[in-house]
Amino acid sequence: MTTLLFLIGGFLVMWMAAGFAMLEAGLVRSKNVTTQLTKNIALFSIAAIMYWLVGFNLMYPAEWMMEGYLGPFFAITALEPVGLDAANASLDYASVASDFFFQLMFCATTASIVSGTLAERIKLWPFLIFVVVLTGFIYPIEASWQWGGGWLSEMGFSDFAGSTLVHAAGGFAALAGALVLGPRLGRYVDGRVVPYPGSNLALATLGTFILWLGWFGFNGGSQLAAGTVGDITDVGRIFANTNMAAAAGSVAALILTQVMYRKVDLTMVLNGALAGLVSITAGPLDPTLFGALWIGAIGGVIVVFAVPMLDKLKIDDVVGAIPVHLIAGFWGTLAVPFYTEGTSFVTQIIGFLSIGIFVFVVSLVVWLILKGFMGLRVSEEAELAGLDTTELGMEAYPEFAKG
Amino acid sequence: MTTLLFLIGGFLVMWMAAGFAMLEAGLVRSKNVTTQLTKNIALFSIAAIMYWLVGFNLMYPAEWMMEGYLGPFFAITALEPVGLDAANASLDYASVASDFFFQLMFCATTASIVSGTLAERIKLWPFLIFVVVLTGFIYPIEASWQWGGGWLSEMGFSDFAGSTLVHAAGGFAALAGALVLGPRLGRYVDGRVVPYPGSNLALATLGTFILWLGWFGFNGGSQLAAGTVGDITDVGRIFANTNMAAAAGSVAALILTQVMYRKVDLTMVLNGALAGLVSITAGPLDPTLFGALWIGAIGGVIVVFAVPMLDKLKIDDVVGAIPVHLIAGFWGTLAVPFYTEGTSFVTQIIGFLSIGIFVFVVSLVVWLILKGFMGLRVSEEAELAGLDTTELGMEAYPEFAKG
Amino acid sequence: MTTLLFLIGGFLVMWMAAGFAMLEAGLVRSKNVTTQLTKNIALFSIAAIMYWLVGFNLMYPAEWMMEGYLGPFFAITALEPVGLDAANASLDYASVASDFFFQLMFCATTASIVSGTLAERIKLWPFLIFVVVLTGFIYPIEASWQWGGGWLSEMGFSDFAGSTLVHAAGGFAALAGALVLGPRLGRYVDGRVVPYPGSNLALATLGTFILWLGWFGFNGGSQLAAGTVGDITDVGRIFANTNMAAAAGSVAALILTQVMYRKVDLTMVLNGALAGLVSITAGPLDPTLFGALWIGAIGGVIVVFAVPMLDKLKIDDVVGAIPVHLIAGFWGTLAVPFYTEGTSFVTQIIGFLSIGIFVFVVSLVVWLILKGFMGLRVSEEAELAGLDTTELGMEAYPEFAKG
Repeated sequence: MTTLLFLIGGFLVMWMAAGFAMLEAGLVRSKNVTTQLTKNIALFSIAAIMYWLVGFNLMYPAEWMMEGYLGPFFAITALEPVGLDAANASLDYASVASDFFFQLMFCATTASIVSGTLAERIKLWPFLIFVVVLTGFIYPIEASWQWGGGWLSEMGFSDFAGSTLVHAAGGFAALAGALVLGPRLGRYVDGRVVPYPGSNLALATLGTFILWLGWFGFNGGSQLAAGTVGDITDVGRIFANTNMAAAAGSVAALILTQVMYRKVDLTMVLNGALAGLVSITAGPLDPTLFGALWIGAIGGVIVVFAVPMLDKLKIDDVVGAIPVHLIAGFWGTLAVPFYTEGTSFVTQIIGFLSIGIFVFVVSLVVWLILKGFMGLRVSEEAELAGLDTTELGMEAYPEFAKG
Repeated sequence: MTTLLFLIGGFLVMWMAAGFAMLEAGLVRSKNVTTQLTKNIALFSIAAIMYWLVGFNLMYPAEWMMEGYLGPFFAITALEPVGLDAANASLDYASVASDFFFQLMFCATTASIVSGTLAERIKLWPFLIFVVVLTGFIYPIEASWQWGGGWLSEMGFSDFAGSTLVHAAGGFAALAGALVLGPRLGRYVDGRVVPYPGSNLALATLGTFILWLGWFGFNGGSQLAAGTVGDITDVGRIFANTNMAAAAGSVAALILTQVMYRKVDLTMVLNGALAGLVSITAGPLDPTLFGALWIGAIGGVIVVFAVPMLDKLKIDDVVGAIPVHLIAGFWGTLAVPFYTEGTSFVTQIIGFLSIGIFVFVVSLVVWLILKGFMGLRVSEEAELAGLDTTELGMEAYPEFAKG
Repeated sequence: MTTLLFLIGGFLVMWMAAGFAMLEAGLVRSKNVTTQLTKNIALFSIAAIMYWLVGFNLMYPAEWMMEGYLGPFFAITALEPVGLDAANASLDYASVASDFFFQLMFCATTASIVSGTLAERIKLWPFLIFVVVLTGFIYPIEASWQWGGGWLSEMGFSDFAGSTLVHAAGGFAALAGALVLGPRLGRYVDGRVVPYPGSNLALATLGTFILWLGWFGFNGGSQLAAGTVGDITDVGRIFANTNMAAAAGSVAALILTQVMYRKVDLTMVLNGALAGLVSITAGPLDPTLFGALWIGAIGGVIVVFAVPMLDKLKIDDVVGAIPVHLIAGFWGTLAVPFYTEGTSFVTQIIGFLSIGIFVFVVSLVVWLILKGFMGLRVSEEAELAGLDTTELGMEAYPEFAKG
């Protein structure tokens, strides 16, 4: 049954890859849509290969999983043989394949976060090389500190489904990239922010709904056990809380943009829902529904304030991934002790900072190396003309005239 | 296992929210797409909060679920504590969280139906306030008459998954709104109907497929039990019948529009599939596959005739929600006695009318109050320019020139 | 539990219908999008009815399923009565309804493959009549040779989830149609291939992700048993291998298009992922993850070479369905003996050719009859103006000006 939970959870999280692709394709301008779609399907594919080749065994080193043994860390993931021996056939057995499948989806999610922030100006191949490093090494190393039984878990850090380990980590890698890459041309002029509206809000909304759906797998599957009725009941609690936090984040952004700008801002509402989801991810089991509501709502509020704040700092985050994943991820991690016994604010902050600093510094180094060796950014002409024609020679909407 | 059924069913029905959003965004004109998307994500979020705050306990009043007790009806939903005690750990145990999660999705669906009919002319906030009342009070009260063990269930009324309780109820609320709101400007001129074609039929088709998929959760989960192999086998029957009814409704509309108009009409085919689904929803378990076929096919036929009929009455239903959900919902409710023993046509009609009158009258009063206090309709200028620029200041497709 | 596997697998495969619809709608030009959407929802609906009326019992003839008995083959599918008797209530019981539901989705998939190849020039009704024959007769007959316990299965042919029986069969039916129909006007001029770029690559990418997700049901459900922990563990292996093959196909096409054309081609990457999926479908259980990787990667390579090869032969396949489903299907079938004991290359080739020749010849005859009786192809004027206005009178994107 735990295997089944991993499989259902895993296909739901896999679906989040489509959600990120649609969200990002909807929020970039139409001249960059093909490139954004290509990055999303490519990063998901690369993650699948790198996490198999290196990541999974780096994250959960275990003798019995190693085959083609090259050293304690660099064993390639191997599955158990077909046909389970009777000794293992208990209801809470989790097969290696299902565990690998489920954990891989978290690794891919981390990479998806990065692609949104850096859209519309980064070259395809340096980005994909960064994905190789992120999914093969950076994510597995930091995640092993907690989920691999490392020092953070021994210290008492608590991050149920990855507000810090997945979302904030993706956000830190994106932040490092955004600083190295710089903002899009013409985005900040004379202290003013020039809006670059997304080309297809229907796609962006679809992407958000997909992510919302996939999150039930993300948080629910992280129960990591489904052998008993009690486990499944806990998964139910997680579903209800996850949904509540998303709803609260969305409503908070809805009301706040109406109050602050006199007009509701759909992209803020979408990001508010996502921020609510990120906020509850560190502790979706223990809060009451009211707890999920206020934790998620604060996530929504964070987004409305953090997006313009980043723009003030001239950090150009095309889809708002840093507010949603990094800042709301911090909030979610911090909020755990309100409902989960045996956790402390100090430990939560230490855990968040440790992972943040590690991911940020290593990512920064990787981005700088990539910049030095092959250049990160397309030429000015290419950026103005759009990456689709210049990088790929293929438009996403070739027949729709530009207004 | 029942908990698991609720969770799987629930995430499928949650996905229907995305289906409604895409269907409606595809069927409105592009100048109103952002507004329609905003309404859909906002109504789903509001439903989640209102159904928790009021609705669930209003619908299923039960001592043991009450916490923060304010009176027999207004208790806020509370979950059981984490960790199930052994006494409850049977295979057919359904946790409160999973039940709440599943039932919430039905409540949200009711609200989704309303947004389509009233599109392209209603203001955002009065609509959202109506959603507050509908999801917090109107739906839970009428649904409790049947599913809360109220007088309709005692009378022998039968509505397995909600042809009347969800779909027709949503349709009646929409009808009341359409009457108060009036048709879109320029829609009916000199006794002629001016077609306002949907802006994106690919999205509308995607939305229909999403709804079709989600309906397996809607009808299958309504078995409400999965503790035995027999229960799961019944869920299988429901899946097969649900699919058959949708297919039959689609094919009926396909053939009928070819015969009547010499050209197949895709939007009719989509609505035919949906009407087939609504038609089987009152009784998806008992019919044979042939039963599901003819019940669904009549649903498809109903749509093809009802859409022009509504236009004759100058009731402007942007997406065809009243034919699909109200009229096919009536048909589905009426058809139950053909296959389900112990039901009668008279009881079905009484049940349908009771719920219809209640929802229609209360909705009418709410719409009229909202009209009096804050106005329901945008200005003529705003309607002509589109709600996206005037209400939200944000276009869905800013770069696609208008043809 | 096997019933449950069929239901979960079935709804995932049902979702592939939406995937094909989006993929094909994204890859045709905007003037043919409505027609393509109509074909997809209609073929899925027709398959549901024909597979019930004829196909299922033709494929799995069994006394106990027959009702309305007209002969050994033409019995209409009937479900068991509601309420399972205790004798059958074992965990590995698979109900007729769930089996029918699951197998139906494979039948519908076969038809979906055909619609893509023949897009942009075939009339609606002859295509739908072909679907009637394909889903009622051709597919059930050839599939019964293997899955109905026929001579291929007795011979030792191995096709776990249908690389040959579903994918190549669909590809052969499409190939026959493409030969009878001829290429689109102006596609091949003076030995040069004129590119007709797809109108909406975001939709095409969404469709690919949907198919990727649905494939977990396609391959995983084909385990056909979930009564034991060992079975579920095998399903986990299948999920992991399926995902790996898709990722490898995608990365192979990514790298190869960069190397060969100096620019990554998104549609090739999408088709590469799909070809990887088709390649692993004949044997998703037995390979190691490394096996899935190289089998899938070769699938991706096949697509990159086969697409221009077909164009050289002036076989006009609008979405690349023949390379993806037929040619990669051959590769997948051929690759089975590398990992599955008791299979042989010779038997695999015999099986593939038997099914290929049968489907191709029968399809060819049907296409020629349809051509003779009612004509297959729209007029030249209609093809140039687009099928949406001429065949259906309804544009998919009426407001987006043509660039």
